[in-house]
Amino acid sequence: MRGNHDSIRAISWDDGALHLLDQRLLPTEEKYLRLDDSAAVAAAIGAMVVRGAPAIGISAGYAAVLAARNRFADCAAGWRTGFEQDLAVVEQARPTAVNLQWALQRMRAKAAGLEGDPVPALLEEARAIHQEDIRANRTMGELGAAFIEAGSAVLTHCNTGSLATGGYGTALGVIRSAWAAGRLTGVFADETRPWLQGARLTAWELVRDTIPVTLLVDGAAAYLMKQGRVQWVIVGSDRIAANGDVANKIGTYSAAVAARHHGVKFMVVAPSSTVDMRVAGGAEIPIETRPASEVLEIGGHGVAAAGAEAWNPAFDVTPAELVDVIVTERGVVERPDTAKMAALME
Amino acid sequence: MRGNHDSIRAISWDDGALHLLDQRLLPTEEKYLRLDDSAAVAAAIGAMVVRGAPAIGISAGYAAVLAARNRFADCAAGWRTGFEQDLAVVEQARPTAVNLQWALQRMRAKAAGLEGDPVPALLEEARAIHQEDIRANRTMGELGAAFIEAGSAVLTHCNTGSLATGGYGTALGVIRSAWAAGRLTGVFADETRPWLQGARLTAWELVRDTIPVTLLVDGAAAYLMKQGRVQWVIVGSDRIAANGDVANKIGTYSAAVAARHHGVKFMVVAPSSTVDMRVAGGAEIPIETRPASEVLEIGGHGVAAAGAEAWNPAFDVTPAELVDVIVTERGVVERPDTAKMAALME
Repeated sequence: MRGNHDSIRAISWDDGALHLLDQRLLPTEEKYLRLDDSAAVAAAIGAMVVRGAPAIGISAGYAAVLAARNRFADCAAGWRTGFEQDLAVVEQARPTAVNLQWALQRMRAKAAGLEGDPVPALLEEARAIHQEDIRANRTMGELGAAFIEAGSAVLTHCNTGSLATGGYGTALGVIRSAWAAGRLTGVFADETRPWLQGARLTAWELVRDTIPVTLLVDGAAAYLMKQGRVQWVIVGSDRIAANGDVANKIGTYSAAVAARHHGVKFMVVAPSSTVDMRVAGGAEIPIETRPASEVLEIGGHGVAAAGAEAWNPAFDVTPAELVDVIVTERGVVERPDTAKMAALME
Repeated sequence: MRGNHDSIRAISWDDGALHLLDQRLLPTEEKYLRLDDSAAVAAAIGAMVVRGAPAIGISAGYAAVLAARNRFADCAAGWRTGFEQDLAVVEQARPTAVNLQWALQRMRAKAAGLEGDPVPALLEEARAIHQEDIRANRTMGELGAAFIEAGSAVLTHCNTGSLATGGYGTALGVIRSAWAAGRLTGVFADETRPWLQGARLTAWELVRDTIPVTLLVDGAAAYLMKQGRVQWVIVGSDRIAANGDVANKIGTYSAAVAARHHGVKFMVVAPSSTVDMRVAGGAEIPIETRPASEVLEIGGHGVAAAGAEAWNPAFDVTPAELVDVIVTERGVVERPDTAKMAALME
């Protein structure tokens, strides 16, 4: 199966630079930024030019290539010191998605054994991270879709498609595969405040793939479930703890609580690079708090009265006991717990 | 206790016309519309110039005065036919808030016994509806605040303050009373998509009253509860069925499900004019579906990709079993059911 998602190139390496589709401007404008140093990539990750845990990891891989190239050009004999400094900056760009640290760790490990110009080998590694992610998404798409009975409708939250990954998508990959298999009667998408990834990005991707999508405000999801109109909630993740607790976009936990209340199944789809076995449970996952202005303003204009404050956590944690299945490219884990996650990651 | 809420005059009768603060423009602009016929009031209710179940009822009362005045001026002998036609138009302005029908029924009953110029008596009745609502809010404020233990924080949804009522507020009246009594450590307000009543209206009211308010996206409410940061969810209602089921702004049901999951208490505050004993349960309450554009656009600009659809129910229904207490000016009903609601409304 091919779809227009194959034409979405949110992340690409070309002409010695990383090119990122500026996701802040979608769907109004399709503009690419050309980034040729790692600090610019770190800034782009922090500003959410690129977002989605896998896409952040892939971008970080290319950032390491840029760091190595520029440091090696400055000082072929002692490039590693500056390279490490640059990677530390990238690593701080956002705290919750562990894929960022995972990708940088892979790039560090690759760099450790290199002699001479490190760029060819590091570029190969970054491209491998990118290609492996696409393959993982295809695998997860099939594994996840197998859970969806024909005649089902699904609800997703945030954006987990080609824009959030190397291509195809995690949760949206499962939805694409299930749609292609003729199993879905409908796809509902939370608009996903405050950044509106559902309205701006997920709807854009699904419309391109000619998969019908119905948006709803996040607060309407429980009422949708009460009416029996969805059988699965399918989401991605920014970090999965060793016990199966799942950090994901703010609002995911609310959907998981409502799903359990209504007997709707809850699926998490993420590559194994999202699993952080160093973190025992969700309480240890660092949750990014983003600026209050993301809630208080829309499109740069103040919405709330001056003087109002806002609490703006970018993510929340859904405990493993509310998760029916975690789908990774290594396999699936039903009713996750520490033992099952350890077995998956062995 | 007095606060700046006393200076908010969202609805007033002056100079032979109804003056409505245009709530679509808040908090950016404080502009009043002068309406001198009932069709204009119906249109203003439909367009959400004025919203909030009690405020809709009060506006409808004044609309009946305008209808009677204009029809009587046209035809002193046969004004009642046109008057009834005009009331039917007002009654159709919005379907969910029963206060609209309730107020018009009161005006009809008053009109039935009148001879000669009906305006003085009808204006007196409309003003009575308005003043009774303010008194009811004060009573409910005290009754509801008595449930709030000192040191509590509360979460509210939508706007239920002076803007949504004759003055003071229902749920926000309880919050005002509890704050004045020194019982609250904090007030959290859902921004309340898609219309952002929380961000635009509730924050505006609380800032004027110098009550600190922290906004959050609706999807973050469950995560706030999980952290133990609120002890009560306090909301208003657009219609309460005979069994205690509660229709209220979309997102209320999601908050109620999350509250029960976390052991957070759930309070509904509404005047007895909101109770519709003709409706046995929530499934019979008509739920307004508003235009998809309210979700697909923000500030008149498209947010979602062209081709995306939206499901935009303006209200949802919270079943009585998720409600800890209903507060009315007649008294409170804990763990509401049909028998207790009947006893309250006797």
